[in-house]
Amino acid sequence: MAGVYISGIGITKFGKRKESLQTLMYESYAQATESQESNFDAVFVGCMNPDEFVGDSNFATLIVDHLGLYQTPSVRIDNAPASGSAAFEQAYFSIASGHYQKVLVLAGEKMSNLSTGETTRILSKLIDKYERSTGATMPALAALVTRRYMHDYGLSREELAQAAVKNHYNGTLNPYAQFQKEITIDDVLKSKMISDPLRLYDCASISDGACAAILTSKKTDVKVSGIGHATDFLSLQYRDSLTSFNATKIAAKRAYDMAKKSPKDIDVAEVHDAFTILEIVNPEDLGFFKPGEGAAALIDGKTGLSGDLPINTSGGLKARGHPVGATGLAQICEIVWQLRGEAGKRQVPANIGLCHNIGGFVNNNIVTILESC
Amino acid sequence: MAGVYISGIGITKFGKRKESLQTLMYESYAQATESQESNFDAVFVGCMNPDEFVGDSNFATLIVDHLGLYQTPSVRIDNAPASGSAAFEQAYFSIASGHYQKVLVLAGEKMSNLSTGETTRILSKLIDKYERSTGATMPALAALVTRRYMHDYGLSREELAQAAVKNHYNGTLNPYAQFQKEITIDDVLKSKMISDPLRLYDCASISDGACAAILTSKKTDVKVSGIGHATDFLSLQYRDSLTSFNATKIAAKRAYDMAKKSPKDIDVAEVHDAFTILEIVNPEDLGFFKPGEGAAALIDGKTGLSGDLPINTSGGLKARGHPVGATGLAQICEIVWQLRGEAGKRQVPANIGLCHNIGGFVNNNIVTILESC
Repeated sequence: MAGVYISGIGITKFGKRKESLQTLMYESYAQATESQESNFDAVFVGCMNPDEFVGDSNFATLIVDHLGLYQTPSVRIDNAPASGSAAFEQAYFSIASGHYQKVLVLAGEKMSNLSTGETTRILSKLIDKYERSTGATMPALAALVTRRYMHDYGLSREELAQAAVKNHYNGTLNPYAQFQKEITIDDVLKSKMISDPLRLYDCASISDGACAAILTSKKTDVKVSGIGHATDFLSLQYRDSLTSFNATKIAAKRAYDMAKKSPKDIDVAEVHDAFTILEIVNPEDLGFFKPGEGAAALIDGKTGLSGDLPINTSGGLKARGHPVGATGLAQICEIVWQLRGEAGKRQVPANIGLCHNIGGFVNNNIVTILESC
Repeated sequence: MAGVYISGIGITKFGKRKESLQTLMYESYAQATESQESNFDAVFVGCMNPDEFVGDSNFATLIVDHLGLYQTPSVRIDNAPASGSAAFEQAYFSIASGHYQKVLVLAGEKMSNLSTGETTRILSKLIDKYERSTGATMPALAALVTRRYMHDYGLSREELAQAAVKNHYNGTLNPYAQFQKEITIDDVLKSKMISDPLRLYDCASISDGACAAILTSKKTDVKVSGIGHATDFLSLQYRDSLTSFNATKIAAKRAYDMAKKSPKDIDVAEVHDAFTILEIVNPEDLGFFKPGEGAAALIDGKTGLSGDLPINTSGGLKARGHPVGATGLAQICEIVWQLRGEAGKRQVPANIGLCHNIGGFVNNNIVTILESC
């Protein structure tokens, strides 16, 4: 199996953007190709739902046309909010097989042009049809998980809020983050109720944005050393647990095995904090902390910028923003910056980094491990 | 690069089906796994637009859940009406890389539950936004191509109808075909006008159906020997020609080069006859006949079941049916049957077969070459 390396990345500022999705993708592409030739064997486009969010189908073709990459093979990958990392995974296979030598991964979503109601309708289709019929939304499922975790482990509402506070602080140091202002625990507790006990500041935003990454068979300073992918029951009610997710645990094991690493080898991680509770549960499922100890690690500062294992240095989904299809690749961009020492004011010491991207409500997850070399 | 082989295939009857899309996929999966274990390293799902056609997102997860393939990695591939062959291509990379040893490809679409107007709206989003704004639909673009071909090469309306007549005849020999009745040139000429000069019987149907294929690194009797993929301008107005398509010519060259074959090595082919004119243009672009000679080859019976190069032995999109996401994999199933000598009454002598699948209006095309071994 050929080695696969990253030779360029790009990202747009996330948030409410006026530009079209293809223009956002172009912006990230231009940044990724700034210091290298822009000829590619193929383009892999991670995007969850351009059909409904922006009203364009045949989106893989639209993108290569918009970028002027005539004749280049192109395909769109949908893995719900794990579309960005899934596109990266498919691109990885294409290089590892020796079929291609240099490919472009683009990932993005434009969500802000629809009403909140329409966006909620689209996002709710990620949920099992029966659970959806009972009125379940993504925040409602996250609220169930939160209540159960509070019950099992004694997590307080204030402790939970700390996840948003930490990630908003990190966001102030990331020029591409949607939100670049600090918030307090009090701000979280006073924000609008979304699904009890989750409030507005417990939830990732609706956002627009795009990212790019160039994968190559030629050695660079960042290697893709592990990719793990696993699914679980679509329906939340059939899962083994409400406070620990098999799709993360199995994906992580597969990625660690492939990279020949263990959780203690990881220096920095981006985890899928679509809701504050996931900032606590995900690190446990990734093996960083024991079950029930994720909150203490957060409160004690272990996952802060000067902690032993900084998590979501980018601001995470919470503060960087969560254009669903873009998120997985945005995590990869952040880890590449960290490994290269290009993360500016939020730089932490790191040789090995991990990204954890969730599809659906924690049922189609991808873990990617990158390594300096 | 590891060799990639096909160890099982399955297909449902195409047409108006009452079952859900996941049930159709299960039916094809059950057929493909009839004589082997059903454990897979991953599942690749080719489907163009489940979000709008059936109202389900997160479709890759839904499918592994419905099939009981818990924890198996799964991803959805969208390449417009070339989604089936694109899913096959991604699955190919995953095995060729050595990352996986045995994977399942599923492809399908359920279109018949929406009104014709709604289906036309969804399919028209495949077209460039500006051309769409002028009222262009897929049949309208095909009509432009037809008129130009008639002008350039003197094709008659009666000759064009022969493409539908031939494929409907082949369909009578395929138990999975949507249409299993012979038609006459007169039937075509008297059918409802869709977009002048194209009539109802010049157009592939709206259809439901699904297919499955199992790819493995272990040697079987059918090898994947070539895959070529190419895109072109999204907009028809910018193409080099209206009667010959670069996305087919370049994809074909790439597939021939990889397989170390030339057009004259191909014994049987499935080509993307979404409209009758494409049954004439595609074989020219694939190098089987010179420009302007595709119609004569058809009329002379060269592409019939007893001709030198039988084309669309399955009945093609025209008679087998065209559930958009399924079509690319349905072509692959037909070629596998032909190579294995399992094509029943439509069997032709064949050791090497080719599939040609179009995404969008001839702008994101994949050519796959399979070989007996």
